[in-house]
Amino acid sequence: MKREVDYSLYLCTDRDLMTSATVEESVELAIRGGATVVQLREKVCSSREFYQLALRVKAITQRHGVPLIINDRADIALAAEADGVHVGQSDLPCPVVRAMVGPDKIVGVSAATVEEAVQAEQQGADYIGVGAMYATGTKTDARIVTPQVLDQIRQQVKLPIVVIGGINKNTIPHFKNRGIQGVAVVSAIVAQPDVEQAARELLQLWKG
Amino acid sequence: MKREVDYSLYLCTDRDLMTSATVEESVELAIRGGATVVQLREKVCSSREFYQLALRVKAITQRHGVPLIINDRADIALAAEADGVHVGQSDLPCPVVRAMVGPDKIVGVSAATVEEAVQAEQQGADYIGVGAMYATGTKTDARIVTPQVLDQIRQQVKLPIVVIGGINKNTIPHFKNRGIQGVAVVSAIVAQPDVEQAARELLQLWKG
Repeated sequence: MKREVDYSLYLCTDRDLMTSATVEESVELAIRGGATVVQLREKVCSSREFYQLALRVKAITQRHGVPLIINDRADIALAAEADGVHVGQSDLPCPVVRAMVGPDKIVGVSAATVEEAVQAEQQGADYIGVGAMYATGTKTDARIVTPQVLDQIRQQVKLPIVVIGGINKNTIPHFKNRGIQGVAVVSAIVAQPDVEQAARELLQLWKG
Repeated sequence: MKREVDYSLYLCTDRDLMTSATVEESVELAIRGGATVVQLREKVCSSREFYQLALRVKAITQRHGVPLIINDRADIALAAEADGVHVGQSDLPCPVVRAMVGPDKIVGVSAATVEEAVQAEQQGADYIGVGAMYATGTKTDARIVTPQVLDQIRQQVKLPIVVIGGINKNTIPHFKNRGIQGVAVVSAIVAQPDVEQAARELLQLWKG
């Protein structure tokens, strides 16, 4: 059966931005600080390396009872028996991924428009990542979602929503009390000198 | 049920080397010339682009009754309902791929040593790609397989073997009458001015 997910503080890994020596260390520290979901994102390494890393990260997330979601690659998610897969608009289509991973895995979809969000809900997504909310250095080609569009998406879909793209301690307050389930964070966690403390502060800000 | 495969002339696509305007055209011409298997290899494009290309190429291979094998990505193979997937030693492990795609898909494994070939057979591969037989511009980091090692692999595994890496009209004669089922070709087909004629000549050389 599909697990219940607390989307409050959704960590996305980024090897190029992280201050930790390894992705595993980055994930371990972020979870200790309070990350409630981990999305593993690798764009350059071989499939074998991605798979082996996913197995090592899964040992950490499983020990802490935090779901592990694999970015883009449904095959890696299946191979490593991760909890789910997250697809963007240039990854495999949501219905294709759902057919591949079955009903019990978490499938997340990125959406930057109301149409994309509504379609993701119709196509069986479990949650929607809405963004980028701000221009960021992490994803320079990202489309920007205005607060108005975010509100429209919130009105038109019932799925949990996490916002992503430029989420940090300064911007988190803008997303409270808007019916959003969580904040997805890359550099405001993994690129910080103290990863654990950074995650802890963000979670407090979000929940406080 | 798994289909019978004629491995005689095994085409590997390469977008960077091809003389055709599109991968689809390159595949169509190579099959008209006599290619008996097509492996679609894409290393740079997005998963969505790879998937959509695989669907378009599958329409061609299916029309000609030629099996389509996807390089590396089991998820793309499943999504596009290709006939199989080919994994190298830095892709997902063969048993993991077999578990994912089921018994009826073709699973090929690259091997450069006797140990790798024997392991692939034990782990449920359907055929083995042995090479690189020569240093090539296509895959500059490839390990070279000597004729002696190729013979040892032939003696120790029962699976069909295709040789790869530097296979062209000059080198094909070296692989005849050695118990090899086919020749896998990249640039000697897709990089030629007349793709169809190049494939035709190679198949005649191999079968003649």
